[in-house]
Amino acid sequence: MRLAVIGVGLIGGSFALALKQARLASQVIGAGRSEANLRLALERGAIDSIAPDARAAARDADVILVAAPVAQFEQVFKEIASALSPNAIVSDAGSTKRDVIAAARRALGADLARFVPGHPIAGAEKSGAGAASAELFRGRRVILTPLPENAPQTVEKIQKLWAGCGANVTRMDADEHDSVLAAVSHLPHVLAYALVHEVAKRENAEQLFSLAAGGFRDFTRIASSHPQMWRDICLANRDRIVEEMDRYAGKLAQFRSLIGKGDGAALERLFAEAREARDQWLRRSS
Amino acid sequence: MRLAVIGVGLIGGSFALALKQARLASQVIGAGRSEANLRLALERGAIDSIAPDARAAARDADVILVAAPVAQFEQVFKEIASALSPNAIVSDAGSTKRDVIAAARRALGADLARFVPGHPIAGAEKSGAGAASAELFRGRRVILTPLPENAPQTVEKIQKLWAGCGANVTRMDADEHDSVLAAVSHLPHVLAYALVHEVAKRENAEQLFSLAAGGFRDFTRIASSHPQMWRDICLANRDRIVEEMDRYAGKLAQFRSLIGKGDGAALERLFAEAREARDQWLRRSS
Repeated sequence: MRLAVIGVGLIGGSFALALKQARLASQVIGAGRSEANLRLALERGAIDSIAPDARAAARDADVILVAAPVAQFEQVFKEIASALSPNAIVSDAGSTKRDVIAAARRALGADLARFVPGHPIAGAEKSGAGAASAELFRGRRVILTPLPENAPQTVEKIQKLWAGCGANVTRMDADEHDSVLAAVSHLPHVLAYALVHEVAKRENAEQLFSLAAGGFRDFTRIASSHPQMWRDICLANRDRIVEEMDRYAGKLAQFRSLIGKGDGAALERLFAEAREARDQWLRRSS
Repeated sequence: MRLAVIGVGLIGGSFALALKQARLASQVIGAGRSEANLRLALERGAIDSIAPDARAAARDADVILVAAPVAQFEQVFKEIASALSPNAIVSDAGSTKRDVIAAARRALGADLARFVPGHPIAGAEKSGAGAASAELFRGRRVILTPLPENAPQTVEKIQKLWAGCGANVTRMDADEHDSVLAAVSHLPHVLAYALVHEVAKRENAEQLFSLAAGGFRDFTRIASSHPQMWRDICLANRDRIVEEMDRYAGKLAQFRSLIGKGDGAALERLFAEAREARDQWLRRSS
């Protein structure tokens, strides 16, 4: 199987390494905007050759994974649209799905049925081919949001590749995907960025940071994520993120009211419910 | 040096283990509400004997560390007040300081000058003597908030003990302590509890948790903290926490407005500023 990866960063590079390790890809060609990153991917064995552009990478590939920043997807889809070989299939690793599907509908034309949208839930604050690992997806979830136009065997092929990376693959529709991710991923990222920004802009920021401990560090870990990527996610999924922010603001107002009036019994109950829910989740997922 | 620890949990047990390891304490006597926990502390070598109550533990001690839940402090202070030997000094490990000092003023009477309030910033979601470690305070910050009544050498003694545990000791006033901690510790805890609670109460909570990943896990780690302890902190420091929640709500409203109107440039700038501030902090603190 010849694989083309457009955007050989953490996700694209890890997909290539995992499929090679599982012997599901024999040859990988990479394309991307950073020469230095592509050379690193080559050195690390994630790719076997570098294509001058997405179109050239796609030409002889059986499977094309688009793992570039989502803002570039429409351009990539346009470039590869008329270059696909007859049985080639395309997937992606974008963190949002409604916008990616809309871009694919505009740009892929007759090739739309060969595109299976996907999202591996394996982000990290690291990025680039240097951080890629064949193990990144082991035990992680990958969500596919198939199109009505996809043939079942097309979806099946992509699903098998992700399963070959060690991932647990789930299917849902793009709308549901974007709602769920807004709640458990996009909202926490915005909350973490907001907290760090609030602290950083204080007059006594240096003192505040100097007394912040492990709890603060873990809480804000995702505020070290890539600013452009999160800008793009916030723009692509803005309606759902705003909805989640409004719900969360309501929850915070409830907590604030209980703290303000000193209702210890209610606070303890809410804290205990949250802790129990989290601990149950950790037990189920371990 | 004979040490008495009232409340031999994570903090009290670690203090005892660290001072024994540093040969700054020769004998440790423990008191507390849980017999099982005290026996565990004895087995682990954190304490050498168990006292029937705080008063008995304090009687022959040179240093008494009060590390029980803050809500019990006033009672503990009352019990030990008239039992202290002539040169004994008392400190504590409470997460809030204005309320602890107020309780000490009410309960310690003539012994107030021997009490040096302190707060080791080394929480963890673990608790109990079983989690105690001689290394817990190494490289961590300990804040002392001395009283006007304290003699300089009294504060110095307590400072040396914490330094002997490997901690970096800072002094500030209790008011400042409670403000700083509200911003970098209490607020994040409330935010994490609120997010988990919000997700847990949704109809599709199970689906949401099943698709939550490492970012969500780290962000919410502190929501596995002890509910009673955090109830007490919220009650003790409610004015400052409410102030921080209001500021944070304002910051969130700013982020929400930018996301709602799709201002990508401003979002990217805020995210980049936050990331840079966090990364600088990590570089300075490592």
